[in-house]
Amino acid sequence: MKIAIDAMGGDNAPKEIVLGVMRAIAQFKDLEVLLFGDEKQILEFLTDKTRVEIIHTDEKIESDDEPVRAVKRKKNSSMVLAAQAVKDGLADACISAGNTGALMSTGLFVIGRIKGIDRPALAPTLPTISGKGFVMLDLGANSEAKPEHLLQFGLMGSVYAENVRKIERPRIGLLNIGTEETKGNELTKKAFALMKEQTAYNFIGNIEARDLLMDVADVVVTDGFTGNMVLKSLEGTGAAFFSMLKMSLMNGFKNKLAAGVLKKDLLELKAKMDYSEYGGACLFGVSAPVIKAHGSSNAHGIFTTIRQARDMVQKDMVGTIKAEIDKGNLGGSES
Amino acid sequence: MKIAIDAMGGDNAPKEIVLGVMRAIAQFKDLEVLLFGDEKQILEFLTDKTRVEIIHTDEKIESDDEPVRAVKRKKNSSMVLAAQAVKDGLADACISAGNTGALMSTGLFVIGRIKGIDRPALAPTLPTISGKGFVMLDLGANSEAKPEHLLQFGLMGSVYAENVRKIERPRIGLLNIGTEETKGNELTKKAFALMKEQTAYNFIGNIEARDLLMDVADVVVTDGFTGNMVLKSLEGTGAAFFSMLKMSLMNGFKNKLAAGVLKKDLLELKAKMDYSEYGGACLFGVSAPVIKAHGSSNAHGIFTTIRQARDMVQKDMVGTIKAEIDKGNLGGSES
Repeated sequence: MKIAIDAMGGDNAPKEIVLGVMRAIAQFKDLEVLLFGDEKQILEFLTDKTRVEIIHTDEKIESDDEPVRAVKRKKNSSMVLAAQAVKDGLADACISAGNTGALMSTGLFVIGRIKGIDRPALAPTLPTISGKGFVMLDLGANSEAKPEHLLQFGLMGSVYAENVRKIERPRIGLLNIGTEETKGNELTKKAFALMKEQTAYNFIGNIEARDLLMDVADVVVTDGFTGNMVLKSLEGTGAAFFSMLKMSLMNGFKNKLAAGVLKKDLLELKAKMDYSEYGGACLFGVSAPVIKAHGSSNAHGIFTTIRQARDMVQKDMVGTIKAEIDKGNLGGSES
Repeated sequence: MKIAIDAMGGDNAPKEIVLGVMRAIAQFKDLEVLLFGDEKQILEFLTDKTRVEIIHTDEKIESDDEPVRAVKRKKNSSMVLAAQAVKDGLADACISAGNTGALMSTGLFVIGRIKGIDRPALAPTLPTISGKGFVMLDLGANSEAKPEHLLQFGLMGSVYAENVRKIERPRIGLLNIGTEETKGNELTKKAFALMKEQTAYNFIGNIEARDLLMDVADVVVTDGFTGNMVLKSLEGTGAAFFSMLKMSLMNGFKNKLAAGVLKKDLLELKAKMDYSEYGGACLFGVSAPVIKAHGSSNAHGIFTTIRQARDMVQKDMVGTIKAEIDKGNLGGSES
């Protein structure tokens, strides 16, 4: 199996990317890596060339580049070349820790959609208090969605949860403003009707945002605008909470002593809410696995993302999605 | 000034409602209260009849009643009668701790909209880490919104923040998936253009959900569906954190000792995130102040909500909104 990796994306590129690849190569004997980026910089950190091929390029997409334009203009960027390798059949999956919008555009325009999936969706795995986590999509690949898109998101999330997260008969919920079938806006009401009709996955009904962290579903489906809002609300509240907690813990000598006692448990609590522990965000709906590793990924983060991509290839995520669509179990419109 | 109060709404009715009224009557010598509900039950807790009139009714709207239907059918319910008193000019404002949806319907159908405001909006004040808080609207009065509605929400939030929260030149932000003008879905892009054009309030641009608790704006405008999602995400994350923190603090003897030391500060932190401290949620856009007190309000909560209603009447919120619309400073469409 070959995975194409953008060595130049993210805050710690290329060092942590290359170190992560080194770990993955050592661990997975069936893995070959195509590494795209500045050869000289990559070689500084590459300690083992076994099953690693460097494809040199000077060009890269910056984190503040306008996504669609960057993908069109920077055809020799490390990110676009990595995707092109997948398109050309030279690699089975691709990974980048760079510009999220650009990676979504690259996936869509360079690799292309699965037939029967109208829109790709960005799907990270988010934390829950049990530590089990849940897959949420779409988290911003599209800012407008139709009911059919949400129907299809449910299928992609289900296939991933079952095959890669190894959850039997995963529970697929629709994010909504109430649990009753009649609740919501036009989009969620129509999506509910379609999801209730299909037979491709286990739809359990509406999920409220307040219950997201409480293990109420294995996959939560929403439109990209709402998903982005909710994700950022979760992140923002978490950050505010830890910031205020820190102030409380530093408030006077006695508190500092108590904080010292609690330190280990509080760091564990923080780690539990850090969703980079759950791997990168998948771009579902394109015809090969494309994964966005966190921008701040270290070698460990890159390693877990490579393992995730490897699982997706081994379990043939894309083939399974196609097969479900061909069986007609979605019942929805096909493009 | 006369305020109409539904004595039968909320988890602690009528006891805490009546006790709250007693406190308000003692504090505000200009205040008269019309109290709607079961006279016998009310009299159990009414220690002072000065400036309080009881209007007896047996009927009430339950928390699980379907809102629109309940308002239409239960014309003699304590909530509908309280609103009717406002409509008939017998009271200046109305308050209920009961069914939120029913109160919104009552406000809209019984009291009616301000001319020039197309949709009412539910607006609670939410906490920030500084303790200053911000007004957010719409939090669910409408599940679909048009750009013009968001434009009008900005005006109502601004008038409230300036006159009742006493913030000079309040900063009005639009909740969006990025801070750049070009970001968002059709709704937020069009709303941005309208809000940028108007001269009735101080629009400061897009606000991201992750920054909501960081004091980036005094008023945050969004559609009811997104607002509801974001509010519930904030609530859910807060609840999940405190639940996990509690588990950490109870994890072994040493932790319990440390938790004892920190108890006071941690309770303060929890209180800071409890937005019932900031008063009830206003239903802006109807032609008299209507406030939803928290369902779990105690006497103190009812007292602060009465004070809030009194401020809104004294500052003539509705008149100020009307005057701004008449000046044409919104520039948007009028209904």
